[in-house]
Amino acid sequence: MKKLTCITVASILMGIAALPAAARGPVVNHAISEAEVLAAQQAWCKALVDISSTNTSSGPAAAKALAEKVIDEAYGYQMGAVLFKPTLAMAPQAFRTSREGALAYFVGGDPAYPKDTGFALKGWTKCEIANAGIFIAGGSASTMGNVIFTGKDGKVTSVDKTWSFVKDDAGKLRIVVHHSSLPYTGN
Amino acid sequence: MKKLTCITVASILMGIAALPAAARGPVVNHAISEAEVLAAQQAWCKALVDISSTNTSSGPAAAKALAEKVIDEAYGYQMGAVLFKPTLAMAPQAFRTSREGALAYFVGGDPAYPKDTGFALKGWTKCEIANAGIFIAGGSASTMGNVIFTGKDGKVTSVDKTWSFVKDDAGKLRIVVHHSSLPYTGN
Amino acid sequence: MKKLTCITVASILMGIAALPAAARGPVVNHAISEAEVLAAQQAWCKALVDISSTNTSSGPAAAKALAEKVIDEAYGYQMGAVLFKPTLAMAPQAFRTSREGALAYFVGGDPAYPKDTGFALKGWTKCEIANAGIFIAGGSASTMGNVIFTGKDGKVTSVDKTWSFVKDDAGKLRIVVHHSSLPYTGN
Amino acid sequence: MKKLTCITVASILMGIAALPAAARGPVVNHAISEAEVLAAQQAWCKALVDISSTNTSSGPAAAKALAEKVIDEAYGYQMGAVLFKPTLAMAPQAFRTSREGALAYFVGGDPAYPKDTGFALKGWTKCEIANAGIFIAGGSASTMGNVIFTGKDGKVTSVDKTWSFVKDDAGKLRIVVHHSSLPYTGN
Repeated sequence: MKKLTCITVASILMGIAALPAAARGPVVNHAISEAEVLAAQQAWCKALVDISSTNTSSGPAAAKALAEKVIDEAYGYQMGAVLFKPTLAMAPQAFRTSREGALAYFVGGDPAYPKDTGFALKGWTKCEIANAGIFIAGGSASTMGNVIFTGKDGKVTSVDKTWSFVKDDAGKLRIVVHHSSLPYTGN
Repeated sequence: MKKLTCITVASILMGIAALPAAARGPVVNHAISEAEVLAAQQAWCKALVDISSTNTSSGPAAAKALAEKVIDEAYGYQMGAVLFKPTLAMAPQAFRTSREGALAYFVGGDPAYPKDTGFALKGWTKCEIANAGIFIAGGSASTMGNVIFTGKDGKVTSVDKTWSFVKDDAGKLRIVVHHSSLPYTGN
Repeated sequence: MKKLTCITVASILMGIAALPAAARGPVVNHAISEAEVLAAQQAWCKALVDISSTNTSSGPAAAKALAEKVIDEAYGYQMGAVLFKPTLAMAPQAFRTSREGALAYFVGGDPAYPKDTGFALKGWTKCEIANAGIFIAGGSASTMGNVIFTGKDGKVTSVDKTWSFVKDDAGKLRIVVHHSSLPYTGN
Repeated sequence: MKKLTCITVASILMGIAALPAAARGPVVNHAISEAEVLAAQQAWCKALVDISSTNTSSGPAAAKALAEKVIDEAYGYQMGAVLFKPTLAMAPQAFRTSREGALAYFVGGDPAYPKDTGFALKGWTKCEIANAGIFIAGGSASTMGNVIFTGKDGKVTSVDKTWSFVKDDAGKLRIVVHHSSLPYTGN
């Protein structure tokens, strides 16, 4: 960080407006911008497709390692818990507030979560986002809308998804709420 | 608000620790407590049952008037929009970011939302909450878990529900995110 | 607020990327931007000079009416209290956590604050800001630096000033902390 | 973190109210409480006296090492900058937005800050706090009031002080704004 350049009587007489912006001291800005939110959504989509393609090209161990990295970088489990309701998780394990539960959902293979088959291993080739709304206030940002997945067979699946993000100390957005569900169809 | 009692040299000499707590000035506290979050959830449940019983006792117009009051007091539509995905709302109207959409979902009767039959008019007699987790950070609080409704015939329906709340200027919690969905059953 | 345009199977097939931005739903953004903070500082400066010139042109009653308007629009007293330490306020009334105390400081004439002569009535002709730093995080924004006042005789006074702002429900920044002091000179 | 205990149909029938609190999932609470704010103030006071007594008992190198530890644990410099205006710092170095500037103020001996003699080395034996007000909102908390220092000769010095705190990822309060000034006396 640069040292502060303070005004002196001389600089006052010379006119404060003449001070270059750089002389006005550091700006720490941890506010959440809409652009950051949109980027975090895109990063989630890209990570899902990456895990799928890693599974295809390098096998499930590599996919699992990537999924762990993604969870540690994109979610807020290190804050204590995340409110995560994955699309296809079933009671009595519908809510995955622990990192272990999230990992099991994405890549399966955890005997503690016997119904999980690995959502991220299903061969997704595309992931797109259509927001119905964004709400940023008080240090957190939430989005709601559809996320549309394209499978290896070209089949399209649309889910209803809510995310809430907060910033960590490093200024990085982290998912602290994630509720995903299949659309209600009346049946 | 009371006027500030400031210390003087005399009071310093007399020992500041002797000052009563009341002399130490106003405390404005807009932080969100867990107790406030739990109370807001209970208030939502009570409101739903109240609208149902009002409908039974006094008819749909009274129920609608009560639903409007509940929406205006419990949700944050006056902030611009709410991210609301009701349990039984269908595409292309799955998301109800406007007050009108929320009201139509709860009491029906709005030609702009032809599939809405009025979720709050279904004769609910009980509404209970089983939180899977609570996350309070910055100026917002989120909950995730089951909400369990008992109908007039005693039938129990459990939904997966996420709420996020922020405080308004008056210090009242308002719902700004509400995602509700039927549990995934594998079918 | 416009109604949400939701995606349908047709729109998915047509490609979600083709949806105009306007179709993606409302964005409520209560995050604080640096530009808003700088504008709020300039507004404070302008208000001070305006009160001074109103006093000169229209007398103290008009100046007081304007000061009340400024306090009600720029400070957060309606939230319960403001942490305000004006430059020239003396113990035991150094801290002005009530609206009455702020008004007395700016325009004087309140027997409850006998030492106040009205800081805003001193004939200020210019008010400039030189920030030493800005810190935005978690729903509030703070600034620290010099505010430089030019009096009617051309004399320049520089003070050390800290402001913290939060947004009210309407999205307007309000001062909730204001600490102003004369520079330390070693004497 | 414990795994989530989810409700099953059986538990619903048995009555959700019978679930023990422990079964309701994790609570992550990063809201700032008044008690935490008061404790952080006391910790600051204790640290100042500790640095002074360490200087007396073990010399300036040990005092400097302790001061570095205190700054790193109590302030938010690792977030990028802190808005710090120490009581006795003079223009053009009145504002210490960098860790180096804070350390120089507390223990002196830095040629880049030639006027600093080490505020924390002055032999303080007592440090007390008299708040004029506390303001907690969103993710930050501010206090304003007097801090009263007792020197080795028993002389008492009262300063006007404002602090603002935010919580880091670990849930610890950190000072991000600190404005301290000598009381205005009319001279």
